[in-house]
Amino acid sequence: MKTPVPDYLLEIRDLCSTGADGHLADYIPELAAVDPDRFAVAACTMDGVVYTAGDADAEFTIQSMSKPFAYALALRDRGIEAVLEKVAVEPSGDAFNQISLERISGRPRNPMINIGAITTHTLVGPVGATEDERDEALAAGLSSFAGRRLEVDAAVMNSELRTAFRNRAMANLVRASGIIEDDPDEAVRGYTRQCAYRVTVRDLAVMAVTLATGGINPVTRERVVSAPVARQVLAVMATCGMYDAAGDWMSTVGIPAKSGVSGGIFGALPGQVGLGVFSPRLDDHGHSVEGVRTFERLSRDLELHLMNTTVTEVEAVRSVRFDEITGRRTFRLQGPMTFASAEQVLRQLAEIPPGDGEVTLDLSRVSSVNASARRMLLESMRRLSLDGHPVGLADPGRRLPDPDLGDGSRPVTRRAAR
Amino acid sequence: MKTPVPDYLLEIRDLCSTGADGHLADYIPELAAVDPDRFAVAACTMDGVVYTAGDADAEFTIQSMSKPFAYALALRDRGIEAVLEKVAVEPSGDAFNQISLERISGRPRNPMINIGAITTHTLVGPVGATEDERDEALAAGLSSFAGRRLEVDAAVMNSELRTAFRNRAMANLVRASGIIEDDPDEAVRGYTRQCAYRVTVRDLAVMAVTLATGGINPVTRERVVSAPVARQVLAVMATCGMYDAAGDWMSTVGIPAKSGVSGGIFGALPGQVGLGVFSPRLDDHGHSVEGVRTFERLSRDLELHLMNTTVTEVEAVRSVRFDEITGRRTFRLQGPMTFASAEQVLRQLAEIPPGDGEVTLDLSRVSSVNASARRMLLESMRRLSLDGHPVGLADPGRRLPDPDLGDGSRPVTRRAAR
Amino acid sequence: MKTPVPDYLLEIRDLCSTGADGHLADYIPELAAVDPDRFAVAACTMDGVVYTAGDADAEFTIQSMSKPFAYALALRDRGIEAVLEKVAVEPSGDAFNQISLERISGRPRNPMINIGAITTHTLVGPVGATEDERDEALAAGLSSFAGRRLEVDAAVMNSELRTAFRNRAMANLVRASGIIEDDPDEAVRGYTRQCAYRVTVRDLAVMAVTLATGGINPVTRERVVSAPVARQVLAVMATCGMYDAAGDWMSTVGIPAKSGVSGGIFGALPGQVGLGVFSPRLDDHGHSVEGVRTFERLSRDLELHLMNTTVTEVEAVRSVRFDEITGRRTFRLQGPMTFASAEQVLRQLAEIPPGDGEVTLDLSRVSSVNASARRMLLESMRRLSLDGHPVGLADPGRRLPDPDLGDGSRPVTRRAAR
Amino acid sequence: MKTPVPDYLLEIRDLCSTGADGHLADYIPELAAVDPDRFAVAACTMDGVVYTAGDADAEFTIQSMSKPFAYALALRDRGIEAVLEKVAVEPSGDAFNQISLERISGRPRNPMINIGAITTHTLVGPVGATEDERDEALAAGLSSFAGRRLEVDAAVMNSELRTAFRNRAMANLVRASGIIEDDPDEAVRGYTRQCAYRVTVRDLAVMAVTLATGGINPVTRERVVSAPVARQVLAVMATCGMYDAAGDWMSTVGIPAKSGVSGGIFGALPGQVGLGVFSPRLDDHGHSVEGVRTFERLSRDLELHLMNTTVTEVEAVRSVRFDEITGRRTFRLQGPMTFASAEQVLRQLAEIPPGDGEVTLDLSRVSSVNASARRMLLESMRRLSLDGHPVGLADPGRRLPDPDLGDGSRPVTRRAAR
Repeated sequence: MKTPVPDYLLEIRDLCSTGADGHLADYIPELAAVDPDRFAVAACTMDGVVYTAGDADAEFTIQSMSKPFAYALALRDRGIEAVLEKVAVEPSGDAFNQISLERISGRPRNPMINIGAITTHTLVGPVGATEDERDEALAAGLSSFAGRRLEVDAAVMNSELRTAFRNRAMANLVRASGIIEDDPDEAVRGYTRQCAYRVTVRDLAVMAVTLATGGINPVTRERVVSAPVARQVLAVMATCGMYDAAGDWMSTVGIPAKSGVSGGIFGALPGQVGLGVFSPRLDDHGHSVEGVRTFERLSRDLELHLMNTTVTEVEAVRSVRFDEITGRRTFRLQGPMTFASAEQVLRQLAEIPPGDGEVTLDLSRVSSVNASARRMLLESMRRLSLDGHPVGLADPGRRLPDPDLGDGSRPVTRRAAR
Repeated sequence: MKTPVPDYLLEIRDLCSTGADGHLADYIPELAAVDPDRFAVAACTMDGVVYTAGDADAEFTIQSMSKPFAYALALRDRGIEAVLEKVAVEPSGDAFNQISLERISGRPRNPMINIGAITTHTLVGPVGATEDERDEALAAGLSSFAGRRLEVDAAVMNSELRTAFRNRAMANLVRASGIIEDDPDEAVRGYTRQCAYRVTVRDLAVMAVTLATGGINPVTRERVVSAPVARQVLAVMATCGMYDAAGDWMSTVGIPAKSGVSGGIFGALPGQVGLGVFSPRLDDHGHSVEGVRTFERLSRDLELHLMNTTVTEVEAVRSVRFDEITGRRTFRLQGPMTFASAEQVLRQLAEIPPGDGEVTLDLSRVSSVNASARRMLLESMRRLSLDGHPVGLADPGRRLPDPDLGDGSRPVTRRAAR
Repeated sequence: MKTPVPDYLLEIRDLCSTGADGHLADYIPELAAVDPDRFAVAACTMDGVVYTAGDADAEFTIQSMSKPFAYALALRDRGIEAVLEKVAVEPSGDAFNQISLERISGRPRNPMINIGAITTHTLVGPVGATEDERDEALAAGLSSFAGRRLEVDAAVMNSELRTAFRNRAMANLVRASGIIEDDPDEAVRGYTRQCAYRVTVRDLAVMAVTLATGGINPVTRERVVSAPVARQVLAVMATCGMYDAAGDWMSTVGIPAKSGVSGGIFGALPGQVGLGVFSPRLDDHGHSVEGVRTFERLSRDLELHLMNTTVTEVEAVRSVRFDEITGRRTFRLQGPMTFASAEQVLRQLAEIPPGDGEVTLDLSRVSSVNASARRMLLESMRRLSLDGHPVGLADPGRRLPDPDLGDGSRPVTRRAAR
Repeated sequence: MKTPVPDYLLEIRDLCSTGADGHLADYIPELAAVDPDRFAVAACTMDGVVYTAGDADAEFTIQSMSKPFAYALALRDRGIEAVLEKVAVEPSGDAFNQISLERISGRPRNPMINIGAITTHTLVGPVGATEDERDEALAAGLSSFAGRRLEVDAAVMNSELRTAFRNRAMANLVRASGIIEDDPDEAVRGYTRQCAYRVTVRDLAVMAVTLATGGINPVTRERVVSAPVARQVLAVMATCGMYDAAGDWMSTVGIPAKSGVSGGIFGALPGQVGLGVFSPRLDDHGHSVEGVRTFERLSRDLELHLMNTTVTEVEAVRSVRFDEITGRRTFRLQGPMTFASAEQVLRQLAEIPPGDGEVTLDLSRVSSVNASARRMLLESMRRLSLDGHPVGLADPGRRLPDPDLGDGSRPVTRRAAR
């Protein structure tokens, strides 16, 4: 059998093809010369499998899609607090090239608009890095996200630099107010270079999923950034990634995303998938016409939306068996254990009548246990033990390692029920 | 055993108690007279169990926390498109009482700021409803969300009305631009009444979880709004609920939420939980000081954050058994089936070598199958069948009802593996 | 001989007739029903002579042209400082109906935009006046400016009130921030009444010249407001009268002015003339198309511009005669004596060689002496006297009454030279 | 006798001395090192006499006071229309360093704020001028206004350049939108040089009066700019010169003016006087504390205010004599003849009964006749002639040269009355 997933992508791509709607970016000749009919889609799973449709290896420049990754690198290199001192995280209600500064602090409103992205760029690499060192830190970081060495498109970079007046204005503004301490010309040069890395939709999907996994590139297995950093980046993409259409995007698509003027859009749904699309015709907001349609369709057809309410509708307790002979109760749990599912378990444990019969938790069908659920399960086992119940644990997959009951004792190891 | 969940809430409440920080709202005497030391927390699970800590039955007025629910009712009564024509869904970057209108359309920027909420209020109930009919539609709708009949605090309502000059200004503004067609005085009176319903943290938790479930009140089992409406409300709360601190809230808390000047905050994490907090001392943004701290703690300690990346880290295929005698392969699936988990399944199915051995999917440990996963599973079974494999299905829980293979045939029913 | 002045007005009116350019205000039926071809001009001199061209007795509503006069009455009744506490005097760069409030004080930016005019309206009459008393104070005041009893057009007033949502919004806003203490509905009703007085271009010219004279209606000889009040009103008209086109108007016309949506414009050039125009077709800014053209033409052809640099190019000392027999020097002065002209006089007096010859100032050709010039002339006479010169004064017109030389002595009275 | 004018200036200076109020500009060391107690005043008359008080020859940098003069030179070199295409003339309501651009055109709001001044700077000199040529055009132009060769303070210029980030931002912004076509770095360097010319209060007074005269430097007798250019500059100073305090300044001072961060303020009252003040301590708006007080005092004490209504209160017809023998009527006119005064004359001429008696206008006491008055006087003489009156003219000062009565005939020449 051939997996139908690529066919789904191809079908969605074809459904979202609009023909000649939109227009190419034309402010530099390199972008205006792109084949307007190119259209590719890629998805990368949490374990690193990439599906594609269309010309998935065609390269284009990353442009504004570099912003979330540079933000991630700055957070990694300087810490979340230090970066927040320089760049806020509020949606501005403004277009990407507006001069949106907080009234009192002078901070750019968020790292997704240009003035915030230029500021963020200067925070990549260690304090005191030279321009070359920062460029290399960025190159290495972006490449780690992508899982291959990315290269700069020098022609695009040079073209952009020739007309980068507005970005130069912004760099001088944040320099004037002391937000950045770098030479504004260096900042613009470095930022323009950052935007000129060549990527494919395959790269975008891998880069995206590296955020969705919490910072680990599932293809190379490299941890690129920490989970808190990935979470921060996703949160900012969710509220600020689509500029002045952030609310509309959250309603209709619901996937933290970022677009670039080259025609790319990538999206990362936490814990689920990374997505990349490329189609160079742009709408009036500068987003890829077909890219937006593709994301709307992916969200609807594949039910990929942050606000989906059905994802984890799990009955956490699959069954309870009472052995009349031994008096042992076995609770077979299933699915991922989170606060919500662990709460279901605890509620049923609370109904056990007083007595001395053993209570065993069978975790053999549990797929994962997060820190909150772990605390809850251990606490309930401790309480059962205090109530006089011997406590057993069947955990062949070691979902609950090191199960200390609080007094140093441990539950009796039991076999999984069948 | 007593479930430790209430103890967790109590512990968090105590940890978040700040003593005398903040100040009571004092623009009307009724709010200024509240006991400043009250502090209660409630959580409601997806199946309707409510946990509380503190004085969970003390009433306070719902104030701005009514906005998402009135928005839900307007969406239900007029349809999403019709409401979007009147009120946009973009974060405004402005405080709650700012006059944030879109430049060209004149639409209020979103339904969470006052001018958008007043507009939204006029869209509750059928077209042409009288003021009384609209009031009753709201009363009935809010009560359905709460699962009990809510009552208006007439003293608060009358006090608010006496100084509602700013809201009256806004109602006249949207009337002037033709956004609303109602009498502005009626709109303000109705909106003020909407804000004066008395609720408890228990109510808030139930109302919240009714959004988190996709519109069904899990206590009364009543469907209050449709899933798309609930999703729309949650999306708007995520980007606009905390006004000009929306981005910060998404970063640090990550739970779609709404606060009110009476000191309440409620939050709804889709598919997971509904939360309510009440503590009347406010910070400079008008949010409950202890309420904000509580939400930060709940998000961190219970790992309740939209951007959590670990929630669904499931291995969807628990095991594959090959019966050498019959040549049957049995794939035991587990956890919720979504696009992401179904993709894992399909990938393994795709590796089956050509041949005529039966392939059976064992869904006995699958907790749910969403529409996207259903389509994928059926399509893969159809392809296996076309490849010559007999296809079997073990689905004691009927997670995949009516499993048509495309040509009218169905898989062979098998028993669940053990 | 018939004076050619009316012919000049007629000629200008005909030159500025544009035919069908522009459109009638149509937000109320009464304005939309006006004959669009009406076009009248009036000018009133400093001594109260009115010239007109076109249908000078046709009435129309005063609309926004009431704002400077209501401002004058508020300044008169409450004092300049008290009014400044409520309404600033800065150009806002905004259109007439924008909500332009100062960020910190909350004051409307100026009394010429609607929100400032509504606030100003509430300051007419004594503190604590009832609505009726304020209406009567306004009626009496406007009538004093016009020199005849003005009447309200009740049909227009009632039509305006039916759709005065935006003004009602503004009244509620300034009430909300404590800028006004009146009931907002009363304020809007009173302001709408203020805008509905019927006037003619003749009235406008007389009202305007009453500001240009420093507050005295030259027709009735009534002092309506004090000179400082008139100056304040003219200053505010100069910077704020034409809303967001104030700078352009100052450049091209240079006459403090105010327009109304009924199609009228009036202008007041301090010390020179009052002007009124009426032609109901409006441009996109809501100014009368032909009215604007007429003012441009009047400014250019009649050299009526605040920045004209040639007006007072006077040689203040017409001649100096030295009588060889008596040794007396007679300085014949001419024109108005201001700082600039008095300075010329003093400079020549300073060249008188030491000695005991008499110095006589002949003021017989001096048209006026302002306070500054008076001080300068008296001081120079005192110094001449101290230097040993007998001092004479020929002042048949009593331009310099009570000419005390500082020590109680007075100059010798001389006859005017011939 | 010594003229008391310098004593007046000294008295005003002393009255306005505040001691230690305000603070020195300290963003560059050169400004922070100035003696804070320096305080000088100068006034220049329409015929070029300069009065001073204090250290009138101490030099300071011209800073923002260069803006009106650079604007004048740009208007001269490119024409008013061409400059208006690049820079608007509306007050912005913003501080001097705000990025105030018109929404649609992208034009800076006016030439007095920095972004408009940088744009204006690039328009000095002929199209296509090199940076050096433009610098020289500016040097020559500013020097012509001052009547002496002005020099650049290189230390100040270099200090300013080192921290000119905000100005560089603005230059890049107007370059980005195509408003300027120059290299932004060149524009900032040239503009910074423009602001670094050294001047004295004496220079300021002469430069100011050169605007007040309509463009002629009364000391050197050089015409620097045309009268329409001078009028345009004065108009823009009146509405935009004092930034966000323009309206307040117009009310309380009423003299078109401009201040600089070095502590200077100059003002030009059209047709009357040029004024310069220097005192380096600044208020929070960046205006000289003592300078502002001095201007308020000069305006009040010397009655120098655009809105003064008493200046030209002239009785234009001094007397009418009827010679019973010859039947001749002689109208003796006096003062400057403008529209307003000529109108008075015409009105009296219109009262002459029909008949054949000669009518003579005696202009011997008339100080000036503007174009509008000339047209009116000639037309009335023509009409009298048509009515059958012989017309005479006594005009020893040739105020009305070439008095054609329309049909080629001329009035009879008469002697001035005595």
